[in-house]
Amino acid sequence: MSETLQKLDDNMEEATGFIDCDVHPYLSSLNELVPYLDESVQRRLQIGRFEKSLLKNQSNGSFEIPKSRYSNPGYVLRVDAVTPNGGVPGSDPDYLIKDLFERYNTTCGILNIGHGTMSAYHNFDLAAAYTSACNEWLYDTWVKKDKRFRMSMEVTPMDPKLSIQEIERIGQRPEIVAVNLRDTQIPMGKQHFWPIYELAEAYGLAILVHPDGIDVGAYSPSVPVGPASTYIEWHASLSLIAQRQIMSLVYEGVFEKFPHLKFVFIEYGVAWLPSVMWRMDKNWKALREEVPWLKMQPSEYIRRNVRLGTQPIEEPFRPGDLLALIRMVNAEDMLLFTSDYPHWDGDIKNRVFLQFPQEVKNKIFYENAKATFRL
Amino acid sequence: MSETLQKLDDNMEEATGFIDCDVHPYLSSLNELVPYLDESVQRRLQIGRFEKSLLKNQSNGSFEIPKSRYSNPGYVLRVDAVTPNGGVPGSDPDYLIKDLFERYNTTCGILNIGHGTMSAYHNFDLAAAYTSACNEWLYDTWVKKDKRFRMSMEVTPMDPKLSIQEIERIGQRPEIVAVNLRDTQIPMGKQHFWPIYELAEAYGLAILVHPDGIDVGAYSPSVPVGPASTYIEWHASLSLIAQRQIMSLVYEGVFEKFPHLKFVFIEYGVAWLPSVMWRMDKNWKALREEVPWLKMQPSEYIRRNVRLGTQPIEEPFRPGDLLALIRMVNAEDMLLFTSDYPHWDGDIKNRVFLQFPQEVKNKIFYENAKATFRL
Repeated sequence: MSETLQKLDDNMEEATGFIDCDVHPYLSSLNELVPYLDESVQRRLQIGRFEKSLLKNQSNGSFEIPKSRYSNPGYVLRVDAVTPNGGVPGSDPDYLIKDLFERYNTTCGILNIGHGTMSAYHNFDLAAAYTSACNEWLYDTWVKKDKRFRMSMEVTPMDPKLSIQEIERIGQRPEIVAVNLRDTQIPMGKQHFWPIYELAEAYGLAILVHPDGIDVGAYSPSVPVGPASTYIEWHASLSLIAQRQIMSLVYEGVFEKFPHLKFVFIEYGVAWLPSVMWRMDKNWKALREEVPWLKMQPSEYIRRNVRLGTQPIEEPFRPGDLLALIRMVNAEDMLLFTSDYPHWDGDIKNRVFLQFPQEVKNKIFYENAKATFRL
Repeated sequence: MSETLQKLDDNMEEATGFIDCDVHPYLSSLNELVPYLDESVQRRLQIGRFEKSLLKNQSNGSFEIPKSRYSNPGYVLRVDAVTPNGGVPGSDPDYLIKDLFERYNTTCGILNIGHGTMSAYHNFDLAAAYTSACNEWLYDTWVKKDKRFRMSMEVTPMDPKLSIQEIERIGQRPEIVAVNLRDTQIPMGKQHFWPIYELAEAYGLAILVHPDGIDVGAYSPSVPVGPASTYIEWHASLSLIAQRQIMSLVYEGVFEKFPHLKFVFIEYGVAWLPSVMWRMDKNWKALREEVPWLKMQPSEYIRRNVRLGTQPIEEPFRPGDLLALIRMVNAEDMLLFTSDYPHWDGDIKNRVFLQFPQEVKNKIFYENAKATFRL
């Protein structure tokens, strides 16, 4: 295994560009959604003229966007990313461009809403209204502002019909490059989701999966076995959800049915690829009569159709081992750089992949994203 | 990374011995338990003189040992291991010694009951009666028969008090080397289990975990996200359960409280160790204030207190990569050979670890088990 150790180079030239596949815009207030919602929904969300200011900070059975069971003992949002006028990190497009894109010569960034999802909410109609409003807000107030912005659109995964309506409504806008599908209690391989996949493939949209939906809302999945006691335990366990979803997707035949569809799992880790691929291939050799629709080994579908966001990148005991591990499963084309700005555990371009040769870095920083998304 | 490729050597000499840490005895019939159960329990299990022969193969609301939701499209039990008189594979100690121990020069084998567990059964008293009977049956009809036999004892994990009673009753017998603790919906790090761990550590018993309890019984955990559609998908997903249990055990501080306790996870895989250790260590660096009881990095506890059965061993794309991966996390002392006889996906001593140098094979085949169990 030849390893090229390269020194930190803050002035690294990119001949090709630099694509950040996970940037999180935040609403500064739910009231920003007022222009995108009719009065009946505003009333149910208690925003706009229905805001109950007198009881704002008190429990009165009032509406709340579902929150995670787990709270970070520090901050989830980077305090050094607070906007110049004291606003929520990630709530000001101009400042984000300055603080992230200009600092790292980002030529393209994919915006994935960070302020909260109702994907596993029990009232699907209300969830769909909120989701559409968020998509429009993101498009109007961010994407139109700078040509480097692209976005994923949210849908309501528990209701494929409503999801299809939303994709048909806006999914062909050129700046929208992915469907942001959250984890629910229905494994992603199930035919429940296939109409969404069919339309996404037809439109050239990737499916992007980001773990905001885990332990958030009535139809959300929990981490395996039983509830985690702490945020650290919960966060470590998130990686297991994506592994499970990949097992479901491959064995149910999603990638045989939709060969051009790309699934991008962001924030679930990378280093489990050998374990998942080797175990799935071995089982397929012995048990493939249960899944006769598969024409290739599971690892071949994974390599062709699955992409992984790199943040939070695993840090091996010995520098160089991460690259060696990735090469064990020929996964150099599967990795996409993600900063996760403005989150606490984000990765910074000039501090990751220091042991990786330049041609692999070019893939992770640019070429793989270019080949995955309709950019 | 130097790799020693060794040819298949059917006559390999073992200077040290060969310990098989996962051999499965089977009841040929529930009636074998009659001598170990009083009449009231026999009546509830409908065995002995309470057997309802007229309706034996019909559904009449009658008792059944909980069965897995998932059925193997082939056989779970190896058809070439059927006993000479046509009995259930694994039901005849004499034949097992001939077919397994003598064939592979096994000097010691740990017997883990294969015929069904009631660990996640909803009626804890009935589960405890069945569990005790199984332990006695295994001890009487197997362990007493040959000095190469050791056994794990089953307990009722949902009820620590009943578990403690059973461990106090038989846990000091020298042939009993481990408590066989099945997965339930309670993560294994929770203090619910600590009285069991305390007594196991005091008696020098390891905790052995084997995935029979997953999707079997009312309090059993399911694979993550939602139900698998097929056996192949379910079986691939099992590995995620052990990873989750290890996250729970480490972060809850079990190994700080019980530093001498060994946890042996059998049949959940091995190749996920880098992913789990690296992610857990990275999170600990950032979030350790949530788990102030930890005095070392998570990977150090895992390396000291966790052991992994090797079957079904992962098969990399390139021979040699499994050893390279294991060495990335210094896990040579963590692996114990397990045959899983008489199951369909068992490993055979002379067909595994062909790329491993002899000193690592000696660890896996003998030394690590010797250091883990009270042998």
